[in-house]
Amino acid sequence: MPATVLQNQQFRLAARPVGLPKPTDWQHVTEPVREIGDGEIIVKALYLSLDPAMRGWMNDSKSYIKPVGIGDVMRAGGVGVVVESKSPKFAVGDYVSGGIGVQAYWAGAADDKYGNFFKIDPRMAPLTTWLNTLGMPGMTGYFGLIEVGQPKAGETVVVSGAAGAVGQTVGQVARHLGCRVVGIAGGKDKCDFVVKELGFDACIDYKGGDVRAGLKEHCPNGVDVYFDNVGGEILDAVLSRINMKARIVICGAISQYNNTTPVKGPANYLSLLVHRARMEGMVVFDYAPRYPEGVAALAKWMKEGTFKSREDVVEGLEHFPDALLMLFEGKNFGKLVLKVADA
Amino acid sequence: MPATVLQNQQFRLAARPVGLPKPTDWQHVTEPVREIGDGEIIVKALYLSLDPAMRGWMNDSKSYIKPVGIGDVMRAGGVGVVVESKSPKFAVGDYVSGGIGVQAYWAGAADDKYGNFFKIDPRMAPLTTWLNTLGMPGMTGYFGLIEVGQPKAGETVVVSGAAGAVGQTVGQVARHLGCRVVGIAGGKDKCDFVVKELGFDACIDYKGGDVRAGLKEHCPNGVDVYFDNVGGEILDAVLSRINMKARIVICGAISQYNNTTPVKGPANYLSLLVHRARMEGMVVFDYAPRYPEGVAALAKWMKEGTFKSREDVVEGLEHFPDALLMLFEGKNFGKLVLKVADA
Repeated sequence: MPATVLQNQQFRLAARPVGLPKPTDWQHVTEPVREIGDGEIIVKALYLSLDPAMRGWMNDSKSYIKPVGIGDVMRAGGVGVVVESKSPKFAVGDYVSGGIGVQAYWAGAADDKYGNFFKIDPRMAPLTTWLNTLGMPGMTGYFGLIEVGQPKAGETVVVSGAAGAVGQTVGQVARHLGCRVVGIAGGKDKCDFVVKELGFDACIDYKGGDVRAGLKEHCPNGVDVYFDNVGGEILDAVLSRINMKARIVICGAISQYNNTTPVKGPANYLSLLVHRARMEGMVVFDYAPRYPEGVAALAKWMKEGTFKSREDVVEGLEHFPDALLMLFEGKNFGKLVLKVADA
Repeated sequence: MPATVLQNQQFRLAARPVGLPKPTDWQHVTEPVREIGDGEIIVKALYLSLDPAMRGWMNDSKSYIKPVGIGDVMRAGGVGVVVESKSPKFAVGDYVSGGIGVQAYWAGAADDKYGNFFKIDPRMAPLTTWLNTLGMPGMTGYFGLIEVGQPKAGETVVVSGAAGAVGQTVGQVARHLGCRVVGIAGGKDKCDFVVKELGFDACIDYKGGDVRAGLKEHCPNGVDVYFDNVGGEILDAVLSRINMKARIVICGAISQYNNTTPVKGPANYLSLLVHRARMEGMVVFDYAPRYPEGVAALAKWMKEGTFKSREDVVEGLEHFPDALLMLFEGKNFGKLVLKVADA
């Protein structure tokens, strides 16, 4: 038992945002961490994962996961350390990954369905990597590309949000599979990074040029697989360059998440007909039973030095509201992570 | 050799339409049928197939098939009879189906890639049925549903343009496969027809009511397969009711073909993500090697009396321009066919 009562800090959802989340959509709460009972643990948050999908969880609409309730702690994945345990499953000092929420401490049943923590090995990869390549974004990119995109060696794979968490995994996995890899990212720095550091064949800067012209230049043989994280105009641009039997993986649509007008549907969707192509949605949770397989594959490449994981770390739980907005402004460079405490 | 020179009548494309085709987009030509040489035949058109896809062929844009050139005879499938033959492949009096074009006579090589005629048996089914259930629309519905839609017994299949050529086949095939079948059609007569005559479980009248409410009422277990012939608002309505792992077959988008504004992309396409669903385009020509299989299956059901084929016949080649417009106004009731001559 700790000598002093732990003080928690939480961000609770105060109101459902219209457009971009505003400061008043959050309630910043400080309160003692509750005492735990048999089978329960307390996890101290170290790093939280900030993801575009969080915006969708804030809406009160039917989706692949329940919306966060008004007054509830905002949902977030994270890595932490067990600081108190009344469960045989975890010992104090264990590093874990799971649904911590946007708070400094998580308390609950070790088997809790939402918490659902699993142990991670900080010697295998840095803690932040467990929220990136070896976490949800990595699993999303790995299984989404392989299972839904089904790329074959020699094919051209295009990925938007290329320097982001999912995009960097998609592109590097595609490279390992022998594909031509073309990223789409915002700004010269991100484009240079994915080409020079991650080994993409090319990258189109959507802020600095014409995406259609870039696709024409860098995908001379058309596009076989497009992994879409952004939607909007970029999806339409890629649809105009797809090959016969192309596969479009619908993973996200960050350009549309804060719309106050209706989502912009892909006007070029009839290109699917012309090219007998397919557009298919994916949600990473479906692959949960296979995460160990994905982690093993990516960790092996990382160990060999042929796969990189880049995180953009913002320090301080109190900066959560502003840090989240970085995603929608494309300001993060690599997987966005919020550092809550030192290990 | 015929004693007199045959007089041909043709509709040639005079201009590329903007929006709905206008009378001035056509050139109506009368000229003698040319003499034929070795390996060639003359086919007298009896019935021509009028299809929504014709609108796309009139545009000068990259698609699954070459655009009709300005000054060229408008492309059309049809059934006819061989009236002159210098080919061992066809005898005078043979009934054939193939690419006749919008004209009274077709003359050319029996093996011509575009003509590509094959013999049909008028005792097996009426000539017009060879342009419907046993022709392109039937093959489109049959292979599109089975191969791309992949319906399983007990699933709910929704089809738009339900009383049209492709729709009537899709719905009846789905019924034969043990699915719940819900049509979407324009007007009470068409809805009554598909339910009472074709055995659909229900039909939603998009002109007379709210499609979303209709889907809610008639698809209490959601939608597993949607065969889309229309696009636009109806596609969005169905996307809001799909089940996990639903399959959407993109066969056409008649609501969008005459747009002078950009195509309306499906604003609800992120439902694909939420439901891990897929939207896939199809073009019937890909299944050409398997047409005999499709014809055999549909002809068997027709013979057993468990499958119906309804055509809407307009008489007179000279009425082609107006007859074509019926498709886009939803005025045809069943597969639209233009009668050119008596057999």
